[in-house]
Amino acid sequence: MPAQLHRKKLLSLFDESQEGAVYIKGGELMYRYQTDYEFPFRQESNFWYLTGVDEPDYHMILDLKTQTYHLFAPKRDAQFAVWHGHVKTMDDIKTLYEPDELHFENKLLSVLKDINPSTIYCLNEEQAEFLEDLDRNFSVDTESLVDAITYCRSIKTDDELNMLRESASINNISHRKVMESVKPGMYEYELKAIFDFHQQSRGLLFDAYNGIHAAGRNSSVLHYTDCDSRLNNGDLYLIDAGFEYEGYASDVTRTYPCNGRFTGDQAKVYQTVLNALNEVIKATKPGVKMEDLHMMSAEIIIRGLKDMGLVKGSVEDLMENDIFALFFPHGLGHFLGLDTHDVGGYPKGVERIDRPGIRFLRARRELQTGMVITVEPGLYFIPALLKPAFEDEEKSKFLNQSKLEAFFDFGGVRIEDNLVITEDGYENLTDVPKEIKEIEDLIKG
Amino acid sequence: MPAQLHRKKLLSLFDESQEGAVYIKGGELMYRYQTDYEFPFRQESNFWYLTGVDEPDYHMILDLKTQTYHLFAPKRDAQFAVWHGHVKTMDDIKTLYEPDELHFENKLLSVLKDINPSTIYCLNEEQAEFLEDLDRNFSVDTESLVDAITYCRSIKTDDELNMLRESASINNISHRKVMESVKPGMYEYELKAIFDFHQQSRGLLFDAYNGIHAAGRNSSVLHYTDCDSRLNNGDLYLIDAGFEYEGYASDVTRTYPCNGRFTGDQAKVYQTVLNALNEVIKATKPGVKMEDLHMMSAEIIIRGLKDMGLVKGSVEDLMENDIFALFFPHGLGHFLGLDTHDVGGYPKGVERIDRPGIRFLRARRELQTGMVITVEPGLYFIPALLKPAFEDEEKSKFLNQSKLEAFFDFGGVRIEDNLVITEDGYENLTDVPKEIKEIEDLIKG
Repeated sequence: MPAQLHRKKLLSLFDESQEGAVYIKGGELMYRYQTDYEFPFRQESNFWYLTGVDEPDYHMILDLKTQTYHLFAPKRDAQFAVWHGHVKTMDDIKTLYEPDELHFENKLLSVLKDINPSTIYCLNEEQAEFLEDLDRNFSVDTESLVDAITYCRSIKTDDELNMLRESASINNISHRKVMESVKPGMYEYELKAIFDFHQQSRGLLFDAYNGIHAAGRNSSVLHYTDCDSRLNNGDLYLIDAGFEYEGYASDVTRTYPCNGRFTGDQAKVYQTVLNALNEVIKATKPGVKMEDLHMMSAEIIIRGLKDMGLVKGSVEDLMENDIFALFFPHGLGHFLGLDTHDVGGYPKGVERIDRPGIRFLRARRELQTGMVITVEPGLYFIPALLKPAFEDEEKSKFLNQSKLEAFFDFGGVRIEDNLVITEDGYENLTDVPKEIKEIEDLIKG
Repeated sequence: MPAQLHRKKLLSLFDESQEGAVYIKGGELMYRYQTDYEFPFRQESNFWYLTGVDEPDYHMILDLKTQTYHLFAPKRDAQFAVWHGHVKTMDDIKTLYEPDELHFENKLLSVLKDINPSTIYCLNEEQAEFLEDLDRNFSVDTESLVDAITYCRSIKTDDELNMLRESASINNISHRKVMESVKPGMYEYELKAIFDFHQQSRGLLFDAYNGIHAAGRNSSVLHYTDCDSRLNNGDLYLIDAGFEYEGYASDVTRTYPCNGRFTGDQAKVYQTVLNALNEVIKATKPGVKMEDLHMMSAEIIIRGLKDMGLVKGSVEDLMENDIFALFFPHGLGHFLGLDTHDVGGYPKGVERIDRPGIRFLRARRELQTGMVITVEPGLYFIPALLKPAFEDEEKSKFLNQSKLEAFFDFGGVRIEDNLVITEDGYENLTDVPKEIKEIEDLIKG
C-alpha cells in the first residue's frame, strides 16, 4: 500500500529521539454557500497521501516515538446506511486502510493524552485551533510538518509515477479526441463536453483544475473560464485541461487552428512556442534549475518575435529589459502531483524572483530524479499588457506598435507537456500531437 | 430584467414607513482546502435572484426608504485582465446590471453610513458579522430577510418558469440519451459521462446536484454517489440527475432495467411506484397539501407490497404503523428553483412532522399557483431498514420475512417528475419515458 511507504518516508525525516506526534484532520464534505448542495468528496491531498482514506471525517495521528499509526473513523448510524450505503465495520476499515490502531473519532482526545506528545505537528492554523479547542495544554507546531510532507511529495515514488502515467494516458486520449472533433462553428462548451466525456467514461470523475477552453482572442486570457464563445473559421483554439486518476493530476495544453490549417502568422507564432518547448524538454535533467529553463524559453520566444519583426533591438537588450514578459507573462511550469500546482516548488529559503514574468514561476529549484513538472511556454498578444507598454518609453522603443496592433485579436499560443525527471533526463508523459504537420493531418482527417 | 422584478417583489414585503436597508454579500470564489484549486464560480442563489450578477465579490444594498438599489463592484487591476480577461468599466457594469447607484466595494461603509438605516436586514450570521466588523454600531436583523426572500422565491415569475422550462427540456434530452445508450456491462460512470455530455454540449455547465447513477442494489442507497459499479444483465439502473440553466435546476429520476426487459418482480415493483406517481400528479393542484400527496403515494406503495405478498395485514394497520416508511423512507418531493432543494418548503410556524418517512418531507405547505415541485415516490428494499424491522415485534408481524429477504439484492425504484402548479392543476416539465412499454421500446431500439 503506497500510503504505508509515504508514512515511512515522513517518519524518516523526524529525529529518532522525537517525543512528538503528527496530527492531520482529513477532509470534510463541502457545501455551496448555506445550502445542501454537496460537492463530490475529494480527500485533502496530504491526508490521502499518508492514509489512502477516501472518505470524509477521518483523522490520523503518527506517534513519532513508537512509530504507531492511529486512524480515527467517524461513527455512522443506520440512517447513514439508508442514505449513503453500506456502513463499514471496524474490521472492514482495518483491512482496507491497515492502521496500527483504529479508533472512533470520539477517542481522539484520550489517545492524544495517552501519547502525551511534547509537540503536536500539524498542517496549518485551522487544524492547530481544532486541537487547541480539544485541549489548551497541547503544544502545537504548524511549520515543520508542511515542510516535511512537501519534501516527501516533491519526489514521487514508483507507485506515484505509475498513477501519473495512468492519468496521463487517459488525458492523452481525451486531448486527441477533442483535436479530432474540433471545427469552426462549435462552441467552447461543446469541446469541453467532449473532453470531459472521454475522461468520465474511463472512470476519471474529478478534473485536476477548472479547464480552459478558449477560442480566438480568448486564448490570450491566461485563466479564461467563460467557455461560451463560438469558434470562428480561422480562430486558434487553446485547450488547457486535465483530470486526475486516484488523485494524481494531468495538466496538458494544446493550441491549434479550429479549421485544421495554420495561417502564416499562426504557424510562425506556434513554431516559436514549440521550439521553446522542445528546447526546454531537451535540456531537462537532474541538476538543472527551473528558472534557467524559464529564461531559455523566454529567449527563444523573444528571438521568434524579433524574426517576425514584432519587436526590435538586440536579443540581449530585449531580455535585459524584460520585454519577453509582455508576451510570456507566466511561469514556465510547476510541480505536478496530487495537486495540479503541486507542493515543493519553493523550498524554504528560496524566495520568488521579483522580475516580471518569472515572478509567477511556481517552481524554483534544482530538478531531481523523481520530480514531476509541467513545461508550458506561451506567447500571447494581450492588449492589457501591450497598450500600457506602448505608452512606456523604456518599453515602447523595443515594440513595433503598428504591427503588434494587428495581432490584438490573434489570441495566444501555449503548449504544455508533463515530464518526469529521470536519472538521465526526462520521461515525457504527454503524447498528444504538437508538430504542425501532425496537427494538420489529424484535424483535416 | 427579471432581477428588477424580483427586487420589486422583495421591496413590496417591507412596510412603506421602513427606515431600514437590505444588505447582501454576493458569492466569492471557493477553493479546495488550502490549495489554489478553484471551483467554477456559481453565484449565491439569493444574490443572483436579486441582481443577475454572475461574478464574484459584489455586494448589494436596497435602501428601503428611498427604494434605491446600490450595487458594489470589486476593483480589478491590469493584472486581473491578464489572468481573467476584459475588465468591465463602470459604464459596462451599469449597462449590464442596471443599479440605481454603482460604487466600488470600498465605498460600502460610507454608503451605509449615508443611508443610516435603523436596521440592516441580512441573510445570516456570517454576513451580519461582516457588517459588524465594518461598524459595531449597525443594528442587524438576520431573520426577516430570509423569510421575505423565501416567500418571493417560492412563487415563480413567468421569466423564472421559462428558465425552468428550458432547463427541463435539455434535461429531458439528456435522460432520453442515457436511456437509449444503457446496456449490461457498462459502468455507472459511463452513463454519467453520457448524461453530462448532453448537458454540457448544450451549454449547461453546472449540475444542479451531485447526480446518482446506481446499478442493481446500489439503487436502494438513497444518495449513492460512488459511481463505479458495473451493470449486470438483469440489473435495474436508477438515474437521479439534473443540470441547471441560468441557475434554475432540473431534478429528474428514472429507473429501468439495463437490458430493456423488466422481470416479473421488477415490473410489479415499478408499476406500483409509477401508479403512485401518476395518482399524485393527477391530484396536484392549488390548495392541496404536500403531506397529503405524500400519504397518498405511501398508501399506493403499501397496497402494491401487499398485492405482491411482501407485507401482510390491513392497509389501514400497515399505514398506521408506518410500515410504508420501511420501503419509502424519504419525502415525496420538494420545491425546485435556483436550488434543487429550493427554499420555501417550510414556512415559518410549520414544523416538520415527526413521523418516519415523512420526517424527511422537504416541503410541507399548501400548493399555490406558480410553485414548482418535484414528485418522486420510491420503493426500496434496504437491508439496513428491514433487518432491524424483522427483529422488532411491532413491525415484524406485518412483514413477510422470507419473501423480503429474496429482495435484498433487488435495489429500489424511484420515478421523479417536476411540476409547475397552475391555476387548474399542474404543468409537467418532465418528458422522459416512464411507462413500462415506452421504456422497453426505447431500450430495445
